[in-house]
Amino acid sequence: MDAATFRKLGHEMVEWVAAYREGMERLPVRSSVRPGEIRARFAVEPPRAGGGLPSALARLDELVLPGITHWNHPSFFAYFPSNTSYASILGDLVAAGLGAQGMSWQTSPAATEIEEVVMDWLRQMVGLAPEWKGVVHDTASTATLCALLCARERASSFSQNRAGLQGIAAPLTVYLSSQAHSSVEKAALLAGFGRENLRFIDTDEVHALRADLLEQAIAADLVAGCRPCAIVATIGTTGTTAIDPLESIAATVDLAGPDTIWLHVDAALAGTAMVLPECRPLWTGVERADSLVFNPHKWMGAGFDLSAYYVRDPEHLIRVMSTNPTYLRTAEDGAVTNYRDWQIPLGRRFRALKLWFFLLDVGVEGLQARLRRDLANAQWLKEQFDAAPDWERLAPVPLQTVCVRHVPQNLAGDEPALTAHNREIARRINDSGAAYLTPSELKGRQMLRLSIGAETTERRHVEALWFALQAAAGG
Amino acid sequence: MDAATFRKLGHEMVEWVAAYREGMERLPVRSSVRPGEIRARFAVEPPRAGGGLPSALARLDELVLPGITHWNHPSFFAYFPSNTSYASILGDLVAAGLGAQGMSWQTSPAATEIEEVVMDWLRQMVGLAPEWKGVVHDTASTATLCALLCARERASSFSQNRAGLQGIAAPLTVYLSSQAHSSVEKAALLAGFGRENLRFIDTDEVHALRADLLEQAIAADLVAGCRPCAIVATIGTTGTTAIDPLESIAATVDLAGPDTIWLHVDAALAGTAMVLPECRPLWTGVERADSLVFNPHKWMGAGFDLSAYYVRDPEHLIRVMSTNPTYLRTAEDGAVTNYRDWQIPLGRRFRALKLWFFLLDVGVEGLQARLRRDLANAQWLKEQFDAAPDWERLAPVPLQTVCVRHVPQNLAGDEPALTAHNREIARRINDSGAAYLTPSELKGRQMLRLSIGAETTERRHVEALWFALQAAAGG
Repeated sequence: MDAATFRKLGHEMVEWVAAYREGMERLPVRSSVRPGEIRARFAVEPPRAGGGLPSALARLDELVLPGITHWNHPSFFAYFPSNTSYASILGDLVAAGLGAQGMSWQTSPAATEIEEVVMDWLRQMVGLAPEWKGVVHDTASTATLCALLCARERASSFSQNRAGLQGIAAPLTVYLSSQAHSSVEKAALLAGFGRENLRFIDTDEVHALRADLLEQAIAADLVAGCRPCAIVATIGTTGTTAIDPLESIAATVDLAGPDTIWLHVDAALAGTAMVLPECRPLWTGVERADSLVFNPHKWMGAGFDLSAYYVRDPEHLIRVMSTNPTYLRTAEDGAVTNYRDWQIPLGRRFRALKLWFFLLDVGVEGLQARLRRDLANAQWLKEQFDAAPDWERLAPVPLQTVCVRHVPQNLAGDEPALTAHNREIARRINDSGAAYLTPSELKGRQMLRLSIGAETTERRHVEALWFALQAAAGG
Repeated sequence: MDAATFRKLGHEMVEWVAAYREGMERLPVRSSVRPGEIRARFAVEPPRAGGGLPSALARLDELVLPGITHWNHPSFFAYFPSNTSYASILGDLVAAGLGAQGMSWQTSPAATEIEEVVMDWLRQMVGLAPEWKGVVHDTASTATLCALLCARERASSFSQNRAGLQGIAAPLTVYLSSQAHSSVEKAALLAGFGRENLRFIDTDEVHALRADLLEQAIAADLVAGCRPCAIVATIGTTGTTAIDPLESIAATVDLAGPDTIWLHVDAALAGTAMVLPECRPLWTGVERADSLVFNPHKWMGAGFDLSAYYVRDPEHLIRVMSTNPTYLRTAEDGAVTNYRDWQIPLGRRFRALKLWFFLLDVGVEGLQARLRRDLANAQWLKEQFDAAPDWERLAPVPLQTVCVRHVPQNLAGDEPALTAHNREIARRINDSGAAYLTPSELKGRQMLRLSIGAETTERRHVEALWFALQAAAGG
């Protein structure tokens, strides 16, 4: 493709994206294609001749859109907000256009230094102390794996340089709440700790980790000859946005002595809320953690994938992750940051660019206003449920997620029937295309999980959701 | 930002990218900014008010470009080709515009099914058997980590469900050549095997793994009570594009019995060459591997990041990687592919889109023509060195990388002087901005590593490199 064709198709695609966004509200939120339906529109064999792109682009509406679930739709209440702002789309366009590799400082100094700038901006925005250093990862899952690897190596005096976990005498143990995200368990298993060495700590009535049980579990493990290695605390669990008690957890960590138990904080969704000073009491104690991850690609709007991983001791991270083969060495290595040594992959896209674009466009105050709008929308919805006798709220609403179930009088106490009834409500809503929510399970109870915070979601969309839920529950 | 502003800025950025690409040849290949120079142009604090994007976009040439090393420059001969084709830029634009999450089939069926389509296209293009199933990862580093985790779990009968590597009696060992990419060692360390359980196998005079030494190492480990777990063979090493002898390695694997030693093939760069049937003898034996990775984001042109990870037994991969918490379960789970269970992260960008765009645009025949051009350019350059008495070629040229050093008569035999002399040649070329190459070390000898294959690199650029090298060597 030559530059003239790129210009022509590029302008067409800018128009296409804008039209898609403008018309999105009229599309069903969740794709309703059947398995295999999209695949069947494609050739089984790769194209022999080129030149097929313009006609495919002209058919995107037909080939691709029916198979898209619209995460930026104003009535998207499923999973979590995953805002890809217009500014971040421009960032992805420019980053792709530059096609730069940021693995080493020298392979594109701007990629590294703009990342240093915006990660420090983010640090200030969420009120963290200056000693925290950030790096862009793809997802919180990966960042949590890095955290547990760093914990493993600190607790084992760098066993990776000897026999690895295979040479461990007293097993290292990892602690997480039973409401922690599945990626924490996955990361611990991938890091080689083994399921038998994970301690799922029960939660209290608001679904937060019970620090008293954590302390008991650690004490019991010490008696049994295990070595407590890491605790993953969650600020804003995926299920209900529960807030683990960071200060009590940090106190437990302190009992074990300095640099013994690694404290990692998973604030994937909730970290964004800390841009609001009034939310920061939710993570009081965060300064006592060793590492922290939150996702600007969720509620904030930096566009997937852009996860912010912060550590207090980057040298330790580098010792665990670094490789320094001859072909990667450059004259400037001592004086600069080489982010390849802060992560699992070697290569790096220029993702900081879209975060920079996004922050310039929205500004801290603009972002704060939007987040406050979303929090108010969640409180409004909570109030509707609380005032309606047939609805039961299953969790507090500290942020933007509301967890409820419908309990009609004739089904009260009949759990199997309530499960079926609430699944049916979710099915009706989701199949209608008018909104999309996540049916989920909380301690054996079927719930409807309503996650507010798409950039385009205004009060009227939340009102429409409330009316739709009542209709689906009653019909 | 509203749609109208997005349209305006989007069109401007399309023009900016096109102008950048058109003018790239006139820019110095490698950025020559000093450490901190880019960072100093940015505010220390995040912007309070929004609206700052248009003025920043107008200053991209000044703020960002000086800090960019131009990987798509026709005189980029460093590291490896990392082609971001125009088509793939459009793919990134549309993928960002859609803002879809492909973690589960249901969260955007098109993201999953188009990935299934294009990964099968790629499989056919490189001549792999139909049983191979592919998934898009970010990088070969990550894919190799996944491969070693799968190997670990197969060899340990899923130790992750028990005490992990911490419960291993006889240590699992991993084999790689001393020329394997640093990411292989890193992956083995992160997977917990421990450095003492890695076996670096020496290479022969063409820098390929010696299968006889591999067999000896495995036999010795068996006698010592270790359990050989995985071999990583490289087709096209990073240093010299050496080709490990896959058939002999596979025969060694077979000696250990079925499903005992995992064979992973790292063809990160060279996999693309297999689009040419005449290159496929280079990886004869690949069908006996358990897993394979190559990077369409390198020489091929699909735009970073898009690494193709192929496995013969996706069920095993899923057993190692899957998480199935309640909020991720959907009604279709049995009937569809959920790529979240084929990788480490949970979330997924719609990366298949840019590969689809790229393949439609170039076609298999167009891609083959370009790859043949690059191979011919490498052979031409090789011939120049071979005909020049003062140049020593340090490795065969099976693909597009030429490894040489300059050996003037007055320095012959003086290794420290040759190292300094060749480093100085690299410095002169790279500082000039006229071309960019990688000074590297090969078995104690300083080399100049010339990697050909940018989409825009024509014969005249390779000729210019040859002249520049002679000038730098003589001056």
